[in-house]
Amino acid sequence: MEKMTGRLTLPTDVDMVKETLEMKERLGADALRDCDGTTMPEELLDTGAKVYATYYTTRKDNEWAMKNPEEIQQEYLISDRVTARGTTLRIELMKGFHTEQLKVNTLDDPKRWWEVMDRTTQQVVPVDKWFFDETTGEVEIETIPYHQYTVSFLAFLIWDPVHMYNFITNDWKDAPHQLTFDVRQPKTQVYVKEKLKRWCEENPNVDVVRFTTFFHQFTLTFDDQKREKYVEWFGYSASVSPYILEQFEKWAGYPFRPEYIVDQGYHNSCFRVPSKEFRDYMEFQQIEVCKLAKEMVDIVHSYGKEAMMFLGDHWIGTEPFGKHFKEIGLDSVVGSVGDGVTMRMISDIKGVKYTEGRLLPYFFPDVFTEGGDPIGEAQDNWMKARRAILRSPLDRIGYGGYIKLAIEWPGFIEEIEHVVGEFRDIIAAMDGTNSYVAPFKVAVLNCFGPLRGWMSNQVHHAIYHREIYSYVGVLECLSGMPLDVVFLDFDDIRNGIDPDIKVIINSGDAYTAWSGGQNWTDEKVQTQIRRFVDNGGGFIGVGEPTACQFGGRYFQLSDVLGVDREMGFSLSTDKYNKLADNYREHFILEDIEGAIDFGQGKSRIYAQGTGYQILDQDGEYSRLVVNEYGKGRSVYFTGLPYSPQNCRVLLRAIFYAAHQEDEMKKYYVTNVDTEVAAFEKAGRAAVINNSKEAKVTELYVNGEKKYSLNMKPMEMCWVEL
Amino acid sequence: MEKMTGRLTLPTDVDMVKETLEMKERLGADALRDCDGTTMPEELLDTGAKVYATYYTTRKDNEWAMKNPEEIQQEYLISDRVTARGTTLRIELMKGFHTEQLKVNTLDDPKRWWEVMDRTTQQVVPVDKWFFDETTGEVEIETIPYHQYTVSFLAFLIWDPVHMYNFITNDWKDAPHQLTFDVRQPKTQVYVKEKLKRWCEENPNVDVVRFTTFFHQFTLTFDDQKREKYVEWFGYSASVSPYILEQFEKWAGYPFRPEYIVDQGYHNSCFRVPSKEFRDYMEFQQIEVCKLAKEMVDIVHSYGKEAMMFLGDHWIGTEPFGKHFKEIGLDSVVGSVGDGVTMRMISDIKGVKYTEGRLLPYFFPDVFTEGGDPIGEAQDNWMKARRAILRSPLDRIGYGGYIKLAIEWPGFIEEIEHVVGEFRDIIAAMDGTNSYVAPFKVAVLNCFGPLRGWMSNQVHHAIYHREIYSYVGVLECLSGMPLDVVFLDFDDIRNGIDPDIKVIINSGDAYTAWSGGQNWTDEKVQTQIRRFVDNGGGFIGVGEPTACQFGGRYFQLSDVLGVDREMGFSLSTDKYNKLADNYREHFILEDIEGAIDFGQGKSRIYAQGTGYQILDQDGEYSRLVVNEYGKGRSVYFTGLPYSPQNCRVLLRAIFYAAHQEDEMKKYYVTNVDTEVAAFEKAGRAAVINNSKEAKVTELYVNGEKKYSLNMKPMEMCWVEL
Repeated sequence: MEKMTGRLTLPTDVDMVKETLEMKERLGADALRDCDGTTMPEELLDTGAKVYATYYTTRKDNEWAMKNPEEIQQEYLISDRVTARGTTLRIELMKGFHTEQLKVNTLDDPKRWWEVMDRTTQQVVPVDKWFFDETTGEVEIETIPYHQYTVSFLAFLIWDPVHMYNFITNDWKDAPHQLTFDVRQPKTQVYVKEKLKRWCEENPNVDVVRFTTFFHQFTLTFDDQKREKYVEWFGYSASVSPYILEQFEKWAGYPFRPEYIVDQGYHNSCFRVPSKEFRDYMEFQQIEVCKLAKEMVDIVHSYGKEAMMFLGDHWIGTEPFGKHFKEIGLDSVVGSVGDGVTMRMISDIKGVKYTEGRLLPYFFPDVFTEGGDPIGEAQDNWMKARRAILRSPLDRIGYGGYIKLAIEWPGFIEEIEHVVGEFRDIIAAMDGTNSYVAPFKVAVLNCFGPLRGWMSNQVHHAIYHREIYSYVGVLECLSGMPLDVVFLDFDDIRNGIDPDIKVIINSGDAYTAWSGGQNWTDEKVQTQIRRFVDNGGGFIGVGEPTACQFGGRYFQLSDVLGVDREMGFSLSTDKYNKLADNYREHFILEDIEGAIDFGQGKSRIYAQGTGYQILDQDGEYSRLVVNEYGKGRSVYFTGLPYSPQNCRVLLRAIFYAAHQEDEMKKYYVTNVDTEVAAFEKAGRAAVINNSKEAKVTELYVNGEKKYSLNMKPMEMCWVEL
Repeated sequence: MEKMTGRLTLPTDVDMVKETLEMKERLGADALRDCDGTTMPEELLDTGAKVYATYYTTRKDNEWAMKNPEEIQQEYLISDRVTARGTTLRIELMKGFHTEQLKVNTLDDPKRWWEVMDRTTQQVVPVDKWFFDETTGEVEIETIPYHQYTVSFLAFLIWDPVHMYNFITNDWKDAPHQLTFDVRQPKTQVYVKEKLKRWCEENPNVDVVRFTTFFHQFTLTFDDQKREKYVEWFGYSASVSPYILEQFEKWAGYPFRPEYIVDQGYHNSCFRVPSKEFRDYMEFQQIEVCKLAKEMVDIVHSYGKEAMMFLGDHWIGTEPFGKHFKEIGLDSVVGSVGDGVTMRMISDIKGVKYTEGRLLPYFFPDVFTEGGDPIGEAQDNWMKARRAILRSPLDRIGYGGYIKLAIEWPGFIEEIEHVVGEFRDIIAAMDGTNSYVAPFKVAVLNCFGPLRGWMSNQVHHAIYHREIYSYVGVLECLSGMPLDVVFLDFDDIRNGIDPDIKVIINSGDAYTAWSGGQNWTDEKVQTQIRRFVDNGGGFIGVGEPTACQFGGRYFQLSDVLGVDREMGFSLSTDKYNKLADNYREHFILEDIEGAIDFGQGKSRIYAQGTGYQILDQDGEYSRLVVNEYGKGRSVYFTGLPYSPQNCRVLLRAIFYAAHQEDEMKKYYVTNVDTEVAAFEKAGRAAVINNSKEAKVTELYVNGEKKYSLNMKPMEMCWVEL
């Protein structure tokens, strides 16, 4: 077979011209890029490869920022929470923040834009009961003794958070701190647009303008020791300014309050069930940001260049699954592939011509160093990405960082040569078609629905947290499954469930946006889902699904789930739970050997009702329970971290819940460490080994054994169907 | 030293006359008793020993019960919770109950006394939208599809729950089921009083009438397979009847609702924060029950006999720490000593002439059998009871069951001879005085305060539950400490904290009555405790103290505690928690070796604020944290099961929190498996070894080493001070 080329972007640097050309040739790259810290050499502007250029709209122009201090970006901060011991209290606003990053906004009237809160009563302290002492940076408050107080206030972002992060991480010494400016402000908007035009004119050889990103950075603040203080990849706290908020007031028709942003100090973490006001604010920002981003993209297009958006950094308001994203008119989105979930976050984007994934590792000195394992990281990353790409392909892949490091690491280029080859094989096999998916939709239900599709239960891009990995695992498993996965919010439930949906998944901690909190006490939500399951639908709950203590139940759909959680109130009620007879022969566990990993699964789950079967227990409590409910079924897991075995467990649970056990065997591999993706139109199937050990697996098609495969570690095999 | 006698009650039986007399002599018993299933032989009525007779007011008279069916005891039941699939639903009331125990009350008007609830909305279904079909025992309801419904209804207790329990447990075959009757009803009240008088006349040799107990059984129902269905040792659900509830309405001034009793199906489990209405109902019942109990006691006294109450069974309304208990005029209370906590529940009772504890094991065939270990049980029981008796003595001890079984078990009588001897030694050493206690009070704070003193976090008498042992451990540790322990409810906090209190303990799961739930959002509660600690008080939290999600915090007193719990909303906030330097040298851990057992301690506890020191961690989270708050201190534990080591940890935590580290060393033993109780007036101290191994320990008095003791397993040594 002729060697395929293309679909690959490589980084380069000024002193790497010859090496870049060699790599371009060897790996068949068709695009070259600069990165943060590297520069595109003049010699490579005309190699036939596309040239990408990173473009920053909001920084790298301290002169402008310093001349227009009132148009520097702003962020709502909340002071420390301080307990009054007497009738007055002084709160030092910047305590615990880094004063090189943030500076109190003294230009706009504090009485208009700040808020002092009595957190003991959650009441606003009237403005005549406090004042700002600019000389000390403190707010003095008339207080009730032993109540707690906070001050919500505006601060200027005098050091771009990402630049600050890079500066600290790379221990830069003399780089000047890059100030920010807010492209939404009137003077800056005009200036930035003109500047982009100029830049396009001055860079005729650049084919792709890669925006990093548009206007508002996700929330990222540092503490007084320059350590990360708060990070929310989806956070809107740094997208504010009086100028914007006055527009918001007009649009929303009610006065803005700082509390809508600081949210008791939680800053609208996406684990919070979003308030109506915050939802309004998100909507407003998405409309406005997309409108302005479109103007930037139009400029790029007017110079015959492509516009690409980086998924991250200043991406607030441009969430790719948001309602307004398509209106920007981007040609492409590029993002970092941390795992299968973040891969899907890119490859599932609609409304662009192509998507591109940056595979790991970045060619950075932290990995390419003694004790580092760049090859192992590349393998782990590719195994997770590959299974997801087989279901929803990227159009392109690429790498970032210092190409010098990659070239010099023995065996690394061979490794990525292999990855790139497998990627091209997949694209070729698909031949413009998709791999087989089951003939029904699987819906993930939470408070955000599609807006934060493939983003549930996450804090920051693919970062492990002990509290979330048992939920993120569900998405990671789903990312590589032969399923049409959609995301619903509770209004989608209220308005009537799409009849193509056969299984609904609700996964998360009680009272979080991922589980749903108070939404579960809404009789409309309850009755819609009960009807759905009663009529044959499937419901899968993980952790604390449908949880909200009310009316005698903690899990509001305990009748559907067949389980509830013991919160102490029903200790007096005897339970008599025991494992189902022959539980190991249940469809869900048919080919599962050994213990199931429930991760940090929730404790104290008990089965109740008349339709349940317990398939796994922890003492007298349960970890895996199935329930018959009318014509439908539910499956409950205490938690489900990612592993090849758990992929199989969840796959079986979904087809079981959907009453489609036979359909699961349409294309089926026996070994749980392997998976199959069938490209029916192409008449081929890929079988992948998701482990680092050799495996034997058998491929069944429509119940007939077609192949027995001896698979090498991590191997992908192609077979004819 | 002359052998001491007295203070001991033994059981007897008709065929055990000679053996009883031998045991009476050998053990120095001064009272004999009959039991459930045994009979006092005529020959023993005049041995010089006091004669106790069990007396049942509410059963053992089926003739009366059958003649007066409307005065049989009643209970509020709640049906299964059933989901409507259409617009009508029939709920079978007795489904899941045992029809030999309970029978639907069809004598009183269902429309007046029952309640059909839509549990999806928590709204009452109007009475014209349902009817009771007596022929099928079902209620038919006009329903909203996919809402859930329950029926709260009255049932007659046609089999006494304790009799039923004994019947099932002992596998009796032909004993007739004992019906109940309600002594509060007019006809029965007259009848029972007359019967008691007659009985007193007919039993001139009985010295002590031991009531088992008065009128209302704690909640205990059985399911259709004769298994326990619901048990709450403190439950009021079986204390109802239309007759009583009409009185309640007059007393309370508002209409009664079944929901006040069935409480969403939780039946006012004492883990529930009690509603105002349930508190009213408890108060009303206590007034009425104590008033009527007094009449019974007066009758007993009029015949020159003593009146003794058994702590348990039909004890609803007579809770010994309740406000009205003393008015009954009892001579004594006897109860089963399950551990140190239940011992204190008896020995701390005021308003009686003496208290008596039934030690374990009961002489029953379940323990005195092959594979049983009655000697081991007696030792474990005594080790827990002994350390508590040293702080708050019983006046008497005793045993129950079949004396034949005890006599025939090799070595058992020697064992209890030893126990009885140690008990008498303690009483003699005390010489009517109390052992040393620290010069401050320690308060346990929950929603029930003194009413349920020594009863927190329990479901049923000393029964282990995985969910509670990490809290019950706190009380068990306290039961044997040299401390004046008091119990407070939240009104006691609101009304001003007793200045003698130096340490407040709050221990339990969030939203339970033991933690306090919504009380913690009351600014009065918050400010009182903050002021208390700020001025030098100590606060100890275990599990989820002060927990109630509100205003940006889960632990409302997170500032006092120095910790909060991660509920998902603050995952974006970085924590940087790490162990304190030299944490093992902290006062609380000074003599603690090896790992601390936190039991089922709560996860995800992080420290915050400026005053904390972390003394134990689980990964990045904390398990033991101390915090400085103004002049005061707090200590937080994720959980604290009972163990000798944890007794020491808690003792140290209390003296640390109280700023009384030196006072702790007034009487101090070095080995954590040992404890000391000092009887200052008697000039003696008891040192006890709480383990089953030999231990070496040193006794310090006021910082001076006085003795080095080689202690045998479980030994108690007396030393001169």
